[in-house]
Amino acid sequence: MIDLSCDYNNGAHPAVLRRLIETNGELTSTYGLDVYSASAAEKIKKACGISEGDVFFLGGGTQTNMTVISSCLMPYQGVISASTGHINCHEAGAVEYCGVKVITLPQHGGKIDPGELEAYMRTFYGDESRDHMVFPGMVYISYPTEYGTLYSKAELESLRRVCDEFGLLLFADGARLGYALACDECDLTLNDLARLCDVFYIGGTKVGALCGEAVVFPKKAPAHFITMVKQHGAMFAKGRLIGVQFDALFTDGLYLKIARNAIDRARELRRIIADRGYEFFIDSPTNQQFVKLGNEDAERIMKAVKCEVWEKPDPGHTVLRFVTSWATTEDDIKAFGDVV
Amino acid sequence: MIDLSCDYNNGAHPAVLRRLIETNGELTSTYGLDVYSASAAEKIKKACGISEGDVFFLGGGTQTNMTVISSCLMPYQGVISASTGHINCHEAGAVEYCGVKVITLPQHGGKIDPGELEAYMRTFYGDESRDHMVFPGMVYISYPTEYGTLYSKAELESLRRVCDEFGLLLFADGARLGYALACDECDLTLNDLARLCDVFYIGGTKVGALCGEAVVFPKKAPAHFITMVKQHGAMFAKGRLIGVQFDALFTDGLYLKIARNAIDRARELRRIIADRGYEFFIDSPTNQQFVKLGNEDAERIMKAVKCEVWEKPDPGHTVLRFVTSWATTEDDIKAFGDVV
Amino acid sequence: MIDLSCDYNNGAHPAVLRRLIETNGELTSTYGLDVYSASAAEKIKKACGISEGDVFFLGGGTQTNMTVISSCLMPYQGVISASTGHINCHEAGAVEYCGVKVITLPQHGGKIDPGELEAYMRTFYGDESRDHMVFPGMVYISYPTEYGTLYSKAELESLRRVCDEFGLLLFADGARLGYALACDECDLTLNDLARLCDVFYIGGTKVGALCGEAVVFPKKAPAHFITMVKQHGAMFAKGRLIGVQFDALFTDGLYLKIARNAIDRARELRRIIADRGYEFFIDSPTNQQFVKLGNEDAERIMKAVKCEVWEKPDPGHTVLRFVTSWATTEDDIKAFGDVV
Amino acid sequence: MIDLSCDYNNGAHPAVLRRLIETNGELTSTYGLDVYSASAAEKIKKACGISEGDVFFLGGGTQTNMTVISSCLMPYQGVISASTGHINCHEAGAVEYCGVKVITLPQHGGKIDPGELEAYMRTFYGDESRDHMVFPGMVYISYPTEYGTLYSKAELESLRRVCDEFGLLLFADGARLGYALACDECDLTLNDLARLCDVFYIGGTKVGALCGEAVVFPKKAPAHFITMVKQHGAMFAKGRLIGVQFDALFTDGLYLKIARNAIDRARELRRIIADRGYEFFIDSPTNQQFVKLGNEDAERIMKAVKCEVWEKPDPGHTVLRFVTSWATTEDDIKAFGDVV
Repeated sequence: MIDLSCDYNNGAHPAVLRRLIETNGELTSTYGLDVYSASAAEKIKKACGISEGDVFFLGGGTQTNMTVISSCLMPYQGVISASTGHINCHEAGAVEYCGVKVITLPQHGGKIDPGELEAYMRTFYGDESRDHMVFPGMVYISYPTEYGTLYSKAELESLRRVCDEFGLLLFADGARLGYALACDECDLTLNDLARLCDVFYIGGTKVGALCGEAVVFPKKAPAHFITMVKQHGAMFAKGRLIGVQFDALFTDGLYLKIARNAIDRARELRRIIADRGYEFFIDSPTNQQFVKLGNEDAERIMKAVKCEVWEKPDPGHTVLRFVTSWATTEDDIKAFGDVV
Repeated sequence: MIDLSCDYNNGAHPAVLRRLIETNGELTSTYGLDVYSASAAEKIKKACGISEGDVFFLGGGTQTNMTVISSCLMPYQGVISASTGHINCHEAGAVEYCGVKVITLPQHGGKIDPGELEAYMRTFYGDESRDHMVFPGMVYISYPTEYGTLYSKAELESLRRVCDEFGLLLFADGARLGYALACDECDLTLNDLARLCDVFYIGGTKVGALCGEAVVFPKKAPAHFITMVKQHGAMFAKGRLIGVQFDALFTDGLYLKIARNAIDRARELRRIIADRGYEFFIDSPTNQQFVKLGNEDAERIMKAVKCEVWEKPDPGHTVLRFVTSWATTEDDIKAFGDVV
Repeated sequence: MIDLSCDYNNGAHPAVLRRLIETNGELTSTYGLDVYSASAAEKIKKACGISEGDVFFLGGGTQTNMTVISSCLMPYQGVISASTGHINCHEAGAVEYCGVKVITLPQHGGKIDPGELEAYMRTFYGDESRDHMVFPGMVYISYPTEYGTLYSKAELESLRRVCDEFGLLLFADGARLGYALACDECDLTLNDLARLCDVFYIGGTKVGALCGEAVVFPKKAPAHFITMVKQHGAMFAKGRLIGVQFDALFTDGLYLKIARNAIDRARELRRIIADRGYEFFIDSPTNQQFVKLGNEDAERIMKAVKCEVWEKPDPGHTVLRFVTSWATTEDDIKAFGDVV
Repeated sequence: MIDLSCDYNNGAHPAVLRRLIETNGELTSTYGLDVYSASAAEKIKKACGISEGDVFFLGGGTQTNMTVISSCLMPYQGVISASTGHINCHEAGAVEYCGVKVITLPQHGGKIDPGELEAYMRTFYGDESRDHMVFPGMVYISYPTEYGTLYSKAELESLRRVCDEFGLLLFADGARLGYALACDECDLTLNDLARLCDVFYIGGTKVGALCGEAVVFPKKAPAHFITMVKQHGAMFAKGRLIGVQFDALFTDGLYLKIARNAIDRARELRRIIADRGYEFFIDSPTNQQFVKLGNEDAERIMKAVKCEVWEKPDPGHTVLRFVTSWATTEDDIKAFGDVV
């Protein structure tokens, strides 16, 4: 059965696995203080074009979101997210579990509109009851979004301007960051992210690693961030497990190279969908494709292709999500073409 | 200056104050175990037509909401609220501070639509990712709502049916409960609330008391609720302060009697607004009246009447909120009529 | 039955009650922004000899402790307390509920030893694992302590020195502050507390008020403290309830004057205990007296005097706590003498 | 340099790594629903002699402790730990971050004394103020303890009896469980743990895995435990990473077999220490050895052996901790013998 259900149903990229094997017998420092984590951090900083700043390695996306958000905000502050943001929908309330309110703005293809953000902030500071409200302290975006869409550089710069005006931190969830950066449609680089965000993370779990996300604070991490990582249960005794993997992913541009495969496969998949005359639910240039199908078509396809039912926009239709990854082969997509 | 800004800018109702004075010299048990709290609880249970169940006295609305909600839910559960719900807007994230996500549904005049609640729950339980989501465990309504509107008995029964089907608790925030029950338009009684809700509270602060809300669990309070009250900082050493006040409010039907005054004054105020040809922003039968005015009218009126700017629906208009209370006099309303 | 069980089983001091009665009919601003709260804050600042700083009025002791502690600390920090500290023993884990660890040091008559504090801090900063530990961020003391004892000025200055050396905030829980300051044995004044503490509170509930504690930040409150007060459910809609009471308590030195009564009565009570040849469990100069009695004596006395069993130091003995207050009369103590 | 600093400074056991390599190319279900996690769970249940019950795989020790403890307790409950318990000392307040108080009892070689536990519980339930206190809801033990010591079966049965009498859950932190079970001095088996504990975990990180702990609920996990795992950020997208490792560790008794190596090496190390006439700080039969040395000896040894300074019991002495693991070789110990 063809499996396009997600981008984390496989193991590690062979080059990543190889480094785990090669380093397995070594004794290293623990808790992320090992040479591989240090080396990976340096390579990431170089790739981001920053000389200062801090890089930390955490285990997964939800863990990273809850740790970063709650560590950067004061208790009277909340985090703004698109209503479809991962933190608002599919993290079991982890951010709220840390005591932080998620303030939602309308989503537009999974994105926050800078104008609506500005309007929200103006209304907030114009409201005489604001002392009784959660103060927005951070804007959370996902890049790419949960719908596979991308903020343009202009949009991100607009968000940044609003953040600067109102003292908001800008945080980009990059669980699938590679699949954004590898797109032709993407006009942003790691350097841009480092310039425009206060903190973002580079997803490893979905882009070649067994686990792990690299959190980048381009300027400076909050004081004692490491203790808050520990406090959230997010510190690995064998921190090298993630360090080694990111060290491999950021050697010789591996991260973007393998991400590119997913984009190429997604383009092929899009062509098949278009050829068949199916309707795209949303226009995504990245590795997640959302297709609106009649229920019968959807059921037929799901017998041959493992994929996710995203939603039911009306009683007669079903939106399916097809996901490619660094590991998806041309043959996979051809086989997909044979059955849809 | 006429003050219609809110219903908690005054002291206690004279009959309530009198009981505080009369009992001031007595020595009583502490932490809510005094004879007055016990007596008040009995009177409230009688007024609700329940023989079992538990009544507790807390200090204020936000405190009550956060304590009740977090004490009734499991950590994997969240609370559903209209987007305009007080817990979602004006409690500084107190519920989330307790680790609980507020799940919002659209508001209709401040109310949740039972059909939309049911649809939400069906979608939730049909979602294969639901283990990654916060499980709805409670429906929070305010009665009357933040817009002064009321659920009808039929609507509340519909909510109850949905709650029963999906194992949801139903919690009514009655910070202004008296001003609902005293309305002619209200077809619900305390008995109905006790029958239909798992927990609700009877607001004292806004209806004749200096402070205090009476939380009613018509069947049974969660185990060790008293310890969780203490844990939330919501237990008064001199618990009698609230007990005595509710004992007075529930003697000879005082609570509803004094609430009725606010309703009568609100009706007079509505008549003036209608006579002047102003537009109601929303149709409220209770003690809060929302009037949509041209900005010039709004500014003029605000020079003579202390009231709250509720919102700016468009650049040319301002919505003002006028609030009556048990203490508002006919003269106040006449004076209001002279200036609007 | 003579009641010496605690200092919060009565109503308000008559002068406090009178002001509540006199102001009852007035309309005031809400949420603590009223003229009485402002006036009380000014009087308190004057009594403390400070011109800057902030004063807030909260409802009760546990509420104040949890709000102040969690608002002043960063998430990686904890609060140091004597093992017998109220926050560690009798607040139902309210501080931990806010996510903050209580780090305990041994108690000496309810007090922290400055030398032991310093040793603890040296060990902490000498520990290479300290990033895996909660960073001490505040020292919590109660003044007087839960055992009625007092820190001397020299002891408090020593604590301050250690706090300065290690960047610790010093917070004094003054739930019974009046009963310390009114003692002849007390060599500290409000001015000293304001000089030596980063934050402390002046207890109202136990010293003449129906409810309320005045939190004093002699230098400056944390940013947006008011929102955190709201978030903890600790803001009163009718904030004047507490403001009026503290305004009365800090008019013409009432607070210390009425506290002095408790001290005089406690001295009479001590003399009786000594005359009878009973053993003091601890030497307390304030309004709480702890007496170690044979079980038979204890049982006999408890039939005539309402008081608290403090502990059972050994199978044959019982420690009883007798508490005087501003309201205890000479006749009460004489009656006590007749039965013990 | 000889490295005896800890048991998590290496990679995975070769047989564990081999399975990761062999399965790397497969596509599996995600979030722990894969075949390897299922297989590992079955093997663990078999090894524990249970047919019912639930097994979950989490990432590390602190994460497991905070997730299990906060998911099993009600908000009014706390967890009892020896003062030296890992949750009390070296987890950066993670348990308190989840809102749960850690109640400490004295440690005896790192262990709780069943009699002292019982006395604590009797005092608690005899205390009339207990509603103002955190209710003990769970006993946390580490097995082996942080000092390498072991509860005997009789001791664990005694703890169980007290837990049964007072309605306490018994939770064993088995971060180093293999190193207990592999000892000759250990009279407990996995079956005993499953019979006597309500929940315990089998440490992988320190016993052959790259990461991962297997949480065993011998009877039944709390409802929706999986959602609470997600909420704590403790769910791995590629859950198979841990599943595969535990599947390998519980094939052909690998877990105990490799743990035995650490015990054999520790015995050799102990013999050397004894031969040299050094003093053991504590008598540990497991893979952690604590040696009390004159400062000069300690400094000399630390130049040749990487190890941890445990504490300074007095100005002239230093306690060093030497740790063996499944990977320590006889040559390592011989080399150790040459330099101490």
